[in-house]
Amino acid sequence: MIYDLIIIGGGPAGISAGVYAARKKMKSLLITETFGGQSIVSDDIQNWIGEKNISGLDLAKKMEDHIRSYSDMVDIKSSEKVVEIKKVLCEEGTRVCDFTVTTDKDNSYTAKTLILASGARRRKLGIPGEEKLNGKGVAYCSTCDAPLFSGKRVAVVGGGNAGLEAVQDLFPYASEVFLLEYSESLKGDASTQELIRQNPKLKEIILNAQTLEIIGDKFVSALKYQDRISGETKELAVDGVFVEIGSVPNSEMVKDIVDVDKFGQVVIDSKHSSTSHPGIFAAGDITDDPYKQNNISSGDAVKAALAAYNYLLQKSKANPVEETTDNNKK
Amino acid sequence: MIYDLIIIGGGPAGISAGVYAARKKMKSLLITETFGGQSIVSDDIQNWIGEKNISGLDLAKKMEDHIRSYSDMVDIKSSEKVVEIKKVLCEEGTRVCDFTVTTDKDNSYTAKTLILASGARRRKLGIPGEEKLNGKGVAYCSTCDAPLFSGKRVAVVGGGNAGLEAVQDLFPYASEVFLLEYSESLKGDASTQELIRQNPKLKEIILNAQTLEIIGDKFVSALKYQDRISGETKELAVDGVFVEIGSVPNSEMVKDIVDVDKFGQVVIDSKHSSTSHPGIFAAGDITDDPYKQNNISSGDAVKAALAAYNYLLQKSKANPVEETTDNNKK
Repeated sequence: MIYDLIIIGGGPAGISAGVYAARKKMKSLLITETFGGQSIVSDDIQNWIGEKNISGLDLAKKMEDHIRSYSDMVDIKSSEKVVEIKKVLCEEGTRVCDFTVTTDKDNSYTAKTLILASGARRRKLGIPGEEKLNGKGVAYCSTCDAPLFSGKRVAVVGGGNAGLEAVQDLFPYASEVFLLEYSESLKGDASTQELIRQNPKLKEIILNAQTLEIIGDKFVSALKYQDRISGETKELAVDGVFVEIGSVPNSEMVKDIVDVDKFGQVVIDSKHSSTSHPGIFAAGDITDDPYKQNNISSGDAVKAALAAYNYLLQKSKANPVEETTDNNKK
Repeated sequence: MIYDLIIIGGGPAGISAGVYAARKKMKSLLITETFGGQSIVSDDIQNWIGEKNISGLDLAKKMEDHIRSYSDMVDIKSSEKVVEIKKVLCEEGTRVCDFTVTTDKDNSYTAKTLILASGARRRKLGIPGEEKLNGKGVAYCSTCDAPLFSGKRVAVVGGGNAGLEAVQDLFPYASEVFLLEYSESLKGDASTQELIRQNPKLKEIILNAQTLEIIGDKFVSALKYQDRISGETKELAVDGVFVEIGSVPNSEMVKDIVDVDKFGQVVIDSKHSSTSHPGIFAAGDITDDPYKQNNISSGDAVKAALAAYNYLLQKSKANPVEETTDNNKK
């Protein structure tokens, strides 16, 4: 069979696209390794709109329940990972194609449209303690988690713009902030550097720091690092460690079909969540959305599903396929 | 005092902007007549992601609770309506200004940035029964509510594109669909007209129909209308009436300051929810977003709040104000 739509990913973007596609009676397949997305490790999400507090696991469960209630329209393959996407059955003289998706289980599925919602993975330090204390003092999103560190001593690892911005995000909350950078100088904007240096809460900028271990029993208590010049090993007593060394979009399987930016992020027109290829849409952390938040992923995925629906309606007409922009549609 | 941010509106967009602004420690004011937005009249919202079912009132309550939990950062003026927005204290040689907002209570408030989230109002028929049966068979959003009419007989009022699309949205659910249009011909796209005429569920297209009354006790049972040619009054036995005669954005107070489209919708760059004026952002049904859904309003408002935060950070630097587009920011 040929699906109307295949959704790749089971985080907020994939779920949102699935619910809307189902309600538009598009026969859909959702392929994901897990449900919930990157925030599933959070003990305490405070910025999912409508919920003052919810754990990442509970939010993932609510989302999974929501999509599974549409099992008549949405088939779900969990524990499968998409490894290849190919264009097939392209209409002569157009860029209108179907798409075949192959997973790591060697299964192949075909659809008329795709929504890419496979997210991104945070670059990790890869040191002992990081995994164990993830969500227990180790954090990867300062916009999300800075408010959890009121009155705490916090280390930020990474001296690029993301690291500097994490320091700024922590100032209103943390009691003391330390900034560690592997190389001999900070890489972020000079003007932001100047701004953070003026704030007395920034206790120290530690350059040439190779992180070695995050220490803690139930919660982070210290960060161990080596001074790469002196070779000396030191321990910094902190309650939190923000790892801000970038993220990698899960776009490897599609980067030859749609335009990606220099970070590998899928470039979208944010009004319709459309990519450079007709029939392929994208939302969430795989895209070039600059903010990367759960509610944004969800909203942009709703646009993707409705744009895919319009795309199929247009295809079913005699007219050539084009994006619809009816401003009175509700 | 001068606020960092004034948010105009208390629907999903306004609430979402407020939560994110508060967490960024922006001193904010939210002005709204009511909480919850247009979907507050729905008995059964099935497409707020994460909730299989929730009433409009319950969703509004959850949102109000969420924003009120940040009362340290967000002042709230409810039961006030913004009637005027003026630019003040504009920096010489730039378009960087503060903004003073005046309400129908003759109160004035000033802020460095604005988020416009005052939504839109559906055009209503203005006939007896419409208000009483709103949410009880009378509906204004086919994307939202078509699934509630499985096996039902439904009338759609309005022969423009929105009406034709409502008919399409109803086909997979309703048993019979009637389309009524006030004038002597349908106004929507010819190709869509052709498509819906082929579907046997479309029982009748009734032209020159002046709607007179929506009849029903607890739920819609009929639609009364007059044939404008013969003068004859008729009753159509239906379980639902979709009113699809357009909507009006609540942008009157700002249309001289930011660009609006021919529908009066505030034109935004959907990547940052920014308007044509520096320091003014917008999200939700007041904007030219083509889909108008709660989750989209929420996501776009998160972008607006984070873009406003970046705007203020940029202003605090020596550099000229410009939109930031750091792709690694999370």
